Amino acid sequence: MLVRPKAGILDPQGEAVGGSLRKLGFAVGGARVGRLIDLEVEAASAEDARTQVERMCQELLANPLIESVEIEVQE
Amino acid sequence: MLVRPKAGILDPQGEAVGGSLRKLGFAVGGARVGRLIDLEVEAASAEDARTQVERMCQELLANPLIESVEIEVQE
Repeated sequence: MLVRPKAGILDPQGEAVGGSLRKLGFAVGGARVGRLIDLEVEAASAEDARTQVERMCQELLANPLIESVEIEVQE
Repeated sequence: MLVRPKAGILDPQGEAVGGSLRKLGFAVGGARVGRLIDLEVEAASAEDARTQVERMCQELLANPLIESVEIEVQE
């Protein structure tokens, strides 16, 4: 799953990355930094795995006020 | 781009995430945590963009000794 800061939410890490890349001479516009979490889940189906990961996001892995989540299921 | 700790490299963040999920009652096997970096790059082509981001990885964004990088180009 991918967790990104929502548009409009301040992202100091992304700004630091963008600033450093520009100082190194790269022509970079916006830069945003998020988290990538790979999880092995026991599930009856892809749909079940997605539902489980959605619950994990709500309970622990993401803050829905400031972060958006993208879940990708691989079997 | 996605930056992951290579297989065999200790990932304390991933272990903490896995442990916390298990405590919450989720049936989770391995958990690995990496970084997601979204960049806007001025480039003549998708190939050019990929080459630029590869150079950024070498110079700043990833440590090839312990991290693997996956670059996805969107136009």
